[in-house]
Amino acid sequence: MSAPVFDTPRACEDAFYGAFAACDLGAMMGVWSHDAPLLCIHPGGLPVTSREAIARSWAGIFEGGGGVRFTLTDLRVVEAADVAVRFVHENIHHGPGLRAMAVVCATNVYVCESGGWKMCSHHASPGPSAGGIAGDAVH
Amino acid sequence: MSAPVFDTPRACEDAFYGAFAACDLGAMMGVWSHDAPLLCIHPGGLPVTSREAIARSWAGIFEGGGGVRFTLTDLRVVEAADVAVRFVHENIHHGPGLRAMAVVCATNVYVCESGGWKMCSHHASPGPSAGGIAGDAVH
Repeated sequence: MSAPVFDTPRACEDAFYGAFAACDLGAMMGVWSHDAPLLCIHPGGLPVTSREAIARSWAGIFEGGGGVRFTLTDLRVVEAADVAVRFVHENIHHGPGLRAMAVVCATNVYVCESGGWKMCSHHASPGPSAGGIAGDAVH
Repeated sequence: MSAPVFDTPRACEDAFYGAFAACDLGAMMGVWSHDAPLLCIHPGGLPVTSREAIARSWAGIFEGGGGVRFTLTDLRVVEAADVAVRFVHENIHHGPGLRAMAVVCATNVYVCESGGWKMCSHHASPGPSAGGIAGDAVH
């Protein structure tokens, strides 16, 4: 299978959250850069910096996962020709009927390499309670 | 007083941690962009996005502060012509004799505007215990 090519940071971000929601480790690791220095911090977690350790961290999350849906709000973007930073609130709908919601704040960094965009950093931390969220969905 | 001009992301970062260590609110707010969308997440805290609220958040931190020193380690940098992302471990020496240490992981984003570099985002979260830190000081 050839590596996926993402034409924009937004396309790469869509694939990241799609893989996350689907608990698809192959798709998740297809999002991450092979060339740039990597960093992944899950909410409340410690930094993970190697590709192998990042894959293990997602595998652990996906083991207990399934049945979540993301709505992203409060997007802020800083973009240059080959680096993009996207700040989002991840509103994670989960549990029976997807009626529970957790909110996570994430700083996602993307780099353009070999003609396509890849993620090089995902820094996430616990966000405000669901009642504190304002803003329209962006994805 | 004219606004400070930082020729590089590193110079802006030095000023940021210098202002932090000195509890100097004027110097701190001289580091932050006037033009870009702003985001500041203190460790364990919620996102703060207006210049005024960011100033208030630092004022609150500085009220109880004083007598800290930073050593930055484990630097990772992603840079483009006008956006730079710098990931650091903040090793914060504090307390009597500066012998206590707290570690914070930060994703700092800088933008080049009006001829100089400014901070537009500081996303920090609790880091590993001091014993888990490896790497040489970078500042």
